[in-house]
Amino acid sequence: MAGERILHKELSERIIDDKKAASFFKDKMVVASSGFTKSGDSKAVLSALVQRAQTDPLKITLMTGASLGHGTDGALAAAKLLHLRLPFQVDTVLRKAINDGEVLFIDQHLGETANLLKANNFPKIDIAILEAAKIQEDGSIIPTTSVGNSAAFAALADKIIIELNTSVSLDIIGVHDICSPGEYPNRSEIHIVEANSRVGTIAIPIEVDKVIGIVLTDKKDSPAEIAPADETTKAIAKHLVGFFNDEIKKGNLTKSLMPLQAGIGKVANAVLNGFIEGDFENLTMYSEVLQDSTFDLLDSGKLNFASGSSITVSEEYYHKVFDNFDKYRNKIILRPQDISNAAEVIRRLGVISINTALECDIYGNVNSTHIAGTNMMNGIGGSGDFARNAYLSVFVTQSIAKGGKITSIVPMVSHVDHTEHDVDIIVTEQGLADLRGLAPRQRAKIIIENCAHPSYRSYLLDYFDRACERGGQTPHLLEEAFDIYKDLREKGTMAKQIFS
Amino acid sequence: MAGERILHKELSERIIDDKKAASFFKDKMVVASSGFTKSGDSKAVLSALVQRAQTDPLKITLMTGASLGHGTDGALAAAKLLHLRLPFQVDTVLRKAINDGEVLFIDQHLGETANLLKANNFPKIDIAILEAAKIQEDGSIIPTTSVGNSAAFAALADKIIIELNTSVSLDIIGVHDICSPGEYPNRSEIHIVEANSRVGTIAIPIEVDKVIGIVLTDKKDSPAEIAPADETTKAIAKHLVGFFNDEIKKGNLTKSLMPLQAGIGKVANAVLNGFIEGDFENLTMYSEVLQDSTFDLLDSGKLNFASGSSITVSEEYYHKVFDNFDKYRNKIILRPQDISNAAEVIRRLGVISINTALECDIYGNVNSTHIAGTNMMNGIGGSGDFARNAYLSVFVTQSIAKGGKITSIVPMVSHVDHTEHDVDIIVTEQGLADLRGLAPRQRAKIIIENCAHPSYRSYLLDYFDRACERGGQTPHLLEEAFDIYKDLREKGTMAKQIFS
Ligand SMILES: CC(C)(COP(=O)(O)OP(=O)(O)OC[C@H]1O[C@@H](n2cnc3c(N)ncnc32)[C@H](O)[C@@H]1OP(=O)(O)O)[C@@H](O)C(=O)NCCC(=O)NCCS
Ligand SMILES: CC(C)(COP(=O)(O)OP(=O)(O)OC[C@H]1O[C@@H](n2cnc3c(N)ncnc32)[C@H](O)[C@@H]1OP(=O)(O)O)[C@@H](O)C(=O)NCCC(=O)NCCS
Repeated sequence: MAGERILHKELSERIIDDKKAASFFKDKMVVASSGFTKSGDSKAVLSALVQRAQTDPLKITLMTGASLGHGTDGALAAAKLLHLRLPFQVDTVLRKAINDGEVLFIDQHLGETANLLKANNFPKIDIAILEAAKIQEDGSIIPTTSVGNSAAFAALADKIIIELNTSVSLDIIGVHDICSPGEYPNRSEIHIVEANSRVGTIAIPIEVDKVIGIVLTDKKDSPAEIAPADETTKAIAKHLVGFFNDEIKKGNLTKSLMPLQAGIGKVANAVLNGFIEGDFENLTMYSEVLQDSTFDLLDSGKLNFASGSSITVSEEYYHKVFDNFDKYRNKIILRPQDISNAAEVIRRLGVISINTALECDIYGNVNSTHIAGTNMMNGIGGSGDFARNAYLSVFVTQSIAKGGKITSIVPMVSHVDHTEHDVDIIVTEQGLADLRGLAPRQRAKIIIENCAHPSYRSYLLDYFDRACERGGQTPHLLEEAFDIYKDLREKGTMAKQIFS
Repeated sequence: MAGERILHKELSERIIDDKKAASFFKDKMVVASSGFTKSGDSKAVLSALVQRAQTDPLKITLMTGASLGHGTDGALAAAKLLHLRLPFQVDTVLRKAINDGEVLFIDQHLGETANLLKANNFPKIDIAILEAAKIQEDGSIIPTTSVGNSAAFAALADKIIIELNTSVSLDIIGVHDICSPGEYPNRSEIHIVEANSRVGTIAIPIEVDKVIGIVLTDKKDSPAEIAPADETTKAIAKHLVGFFNDEIKKGNLTKSLMPLQAGIGKVANAVLNGFIEGDFENLTMYSEVLQDSTFDLLDSGKLNFASGSSITVSEEYYHKVFDNFDKYRNKIILRPQDISNAAEVIRRLGVISINTALECDIYGNVNSTHIAGTNMMNGIGGSGDFARNAYLSVFVTQSIAKGGKITSIVPMVSHVDHTEHDVDIIVTEQGLADLRGLAPRQRAKIIIENCAHPSYRSYLLDYFDRACERGGQTPHLLEEAFDIYKDLREKGTMAKQIFS
C-alpha cells in the first residue's frame, strides 16, 4: 500500500514509526504541522508526542495552518506540551488553557503566518510535520485535504517528518495548486486573475536531505460538526440573498455576483446554503474552507468553481465528495493559505466576503474572537484577510446570544478585530444594515434599527442619543460604554440593564 | 503662458473663469477634487464655490485624495457647503464641524476610495475638479505635485473641470506614473516589483467630452508646516535607528533595509530624519507623502529612490526641490494612491512602515484617529494600508501628551484603528517594544516596561496584574478599562488616578 505512494527510492528507506518520530522533538523546539480546520493535520506524530510527554515532559511552540482535528490540540494542551500556539484553534480544552494563561496563543491573520516567517519576524522552525498522500519521484509531496502553510513550512523548516496518509484517495492528485510569491526582496506577482486560475504545481517541493522520517498512518480527518440551519440562521440567509437580488436588479452586480468567500461556523454555513435559493448563476468561490455547503452549491449547478485551502466536511459529505471525486475534480482547487488569503488576489478578484461576528457595535466595528473582550473563542482566522480587501465585506451574527441574555449589537465592541472601515454590511435575523457610504452617526441609526434585537433597541438608541449630545465623530460615553458586560458578569444578563 | 500648457485644440477653447466653474455645482452633488496632503488640490474652483455659497447656499459631498491646503476645507465647512466629506482632513475648522455633527465624515483607508467607487459602493461622482500642469495633444493631463485619486476620479466622474496651474514648473513632466489595476471583474496584477518600477504613463487619460471647463490659476500649494525635531522625537528616532542597526548585525536585514514608508506628522518626520544618522545605504522609499525629510535623505546619499503619491514640503524645501528638479527627477515617482497604498505592492516589496499613534494599549492595539475615542483628529490616512501589509509595522508616539496629563500608553485604547495583529514594534521616547512573536500577555509587560512614561507604569502594571487574575487571552477589567478618560474629563488629567 505504502509502496505505490513513495516513488523516491531514498525516501522509501526512511520509514519510521510514530514513537521514533516523537523522539526527535526537544524541549523549546519550534514545531510546525500541516492541518487546516481539522483537515490534512498530523494524526500520528503529534499523538505519539502526547504519549511521550506523559513520561517525558517537554514544551514546544506549535504553529499550523489553522485548527487540528481529533482533539489533538486539546490533548497537546492537557499533556502540557504547548508553550506557544499559533495561529488559530477551536478546541475547548486548549481554549481553556489559553484563557487560564497556561498556554500562550498568538491569534494571527491566517494569510500572514508564512509572510512573518519569511520576514524573519518569528523564530526558525526546527521540525515540520507534513501530511502527504504521496511522495513523488523527485521527493515532492502531494498534500491531502488541505494545503494550509505546508509549502512554507517545507521550505523554511530545518527538518521535515512526512506523515504519509494511506487513507486519502489518490484521486486527490491534481487538485492542489502550489505556488509561492517568492522570497524577499525578490517577490513577484501572484498571477491569479480568476478563482480557477492555476499558477503552480500539484506538489510541494521538498529538500530530500531535510527529511528525517516518514510515518505511515491511515487515520482519517476528523469530520466537521456543523449545526444544521435553524429559523434564525435561515432568516439571516434570506436577508442577505434578498440584498444580492436587489443589487442585481439595480445593475450593481450580475447574477454571477463576484467570487464568494464564507467563514466558518454554523451561521456562515447556513448563509452559504441560502444561496441555493437565490436567483444566481455561474457563481464562483475564492475562499478558505470548502464546507458541506460548498458541495451543495456545486451540486445545485449554481456554483461553477471553488478555490480554497482545505476541504472540511462532515462524515456524510466526506464520502459524497471522495467517492465521486471525478465529479468535483475540475471544480475545485486547494491553495497555500498565503495564496487563498492573499490581499493581492482578494482585491483583484473582487471577493464578496461573508464572515461571522460574535458582536458588532453601533458604528460597525466587529469582534469575532474575544468573549467580553477577554476570553479567546477561536481566533480571527482569515476573516481579516478577506474583510479588509473585499469588494463587499459582510458580517453576519445572531442579534442575541444565550437566549437573549447577551446582545450581539452593543454600544462599543469589547474587542476589535475588524474596524468600521472594513465592514460594509451587517446582517442579523432581524435585518440587514447597508453601511456603504455612511458616516458613523448614520451607521448607528441603521444598525440599531435593522439589526439589533427589539428588546435591546431602546437601550442602544438611548446610549447613542446621549452620546451624540456630547458630540464627536464617533459619539461615545466611555464611562458607560461597557456597562452591559458588568451586568453580565454580576447579574448574569445584559438585559437587566434595560429594564432597571 | 497658458498656451504652451494646452496642446489640445478643442480644450483650449473651453477656458472659463472660476466663478463660471462654481456655477456648475448643484445642491446634493457628489464632487471629487484632486489634492493629497495639501498638494495638487483645487485652489481656484473650490474657493470660488465658497464665495458663491455666501449668497447661494448649497451642500455637496466632497471626496479628495487626502487633505486640502489653503484652509479650503475650513472655508468649505464655514460656508456650510459640506454635507459629507471623505476620506481624510486635517483642518481645525472642519474638524470642529465634524465633531459637532454638522459635517458627516467618512474616515477611510486612502488606498480604498478608488476601489469602493469602482465596486459601486459609493454614489457616482457628478463633477471632478482636477489640477493639472499641462494638457497634452490627446487631452490627457499631467498632474502637479500629487496624483492622489485623480486618475480614478477622471475615469469615473460624469463631468470634469481642469484647473490648469501655471505656477507649477513643467519640469515635473515625467515624474508621474499613472496606472490602474483595471475594472472589475477583469482586473490584473500591478506589476510593480521595486520601489522604482515604472508601469504606467506620465499623464492621466481624459475623455475630452466630459470636460466642462478649464480654469487657470497660479496659486501655489500651501506649504507644509512641520514642527522641528525636539529631544523627545529625536529620542524616538534614536531607539528606532538602534533597532535597525541591531537587525542588520543579526543578519535579519541588510544595510538597505527594505523600502520605507513614513506617516505624516512631526514624529514621523523626525524619525525619518533620524535615518540620516544610521549605518544605512541604498535605501528606498515606497511611501505616500514625500516630506522634507525625504529630500534630506536623498541629499544625504543614503536614500536612492522615493515613490509616493504627493510631494508635500515646507516653503523652503519647495524651492530647494523645484529649483533643482533635475537633481531629483530620476529619484522620485508619484503614483495614484490606490497604487502607492496597494496591499499587493506593499506586501510584495516588503515595506517597513512607520506610522504615528495617538495612543497604544498594553496589548499593542493602536488608536491613530480619535481623541478619547470620540473626537476625530485627522483620519486613518494610509496608515492601515501600510501597517496591515508591511514586512515590519512600526508605530511611534510620545509616551505622554499635554505635558503629562495624558498617557499615550493606556490599558485599552478608546478607539481601534490598528489591531494588535498589525503592530510589530512600538516606540516612544522611553524605548522600543519589539512585539514580534509575542502573545498578548507577553506584549503587555514589554510595552509597559519599555514604552510607558515612568509616572504611569505602576498604574498600568497594576491594571494588568489584576486583569490577569481574572484571566483571558487578553486580560481586561472592562469596568475600569476607561477610568483614565473619565478622570481626564472630570479632573482634567489622567495622572490623578495614579496618585489617588
Ligand atoms: C464567531 C464564531 C465563533 C461564530 O460561530 P458560529 O458557530 O457561527 O455562531 P454561534 O452563534 O453558534 O456562536 C458560537 C458560540 O458563541 C456564543 N456567542 C455568540 N455571540 C456571543 C456573544 N456576543 N457573547 C458571548 N458569546 C457569544 C454562542 O452562544 C455560541 O456558544 P455555544 O458554543 O456555547 O453555543 C465563528 O464564526 C468564528 O470563530 N469566527 C472567527 C474566525 C473566522 O471568522 N474565520 C473565517 C474565515 S476562517
Ligand atoms: C496621530 C497624529 C495626529 C500625530 O501627529 P504628530 O504631529 O506626529 O504628533 P503630536 O504628538 O504633535 O500630536 C498631535 C496632537 O495630538 C495631541 N495628542 C497626542 N496624543 C494624544 C492623546 N493620546 N490624547 C489626546 N491628544 C493627544 C498632541 O498633544 C498634539 O496636540 P496639539 O496639536 O494640540 O499640540 C498624526 O500622525 C496622524 O494624523 N496620523 C494618522 C494618519 C496617518 O498615520 N497617516 C499616515 C499615512 S498618511
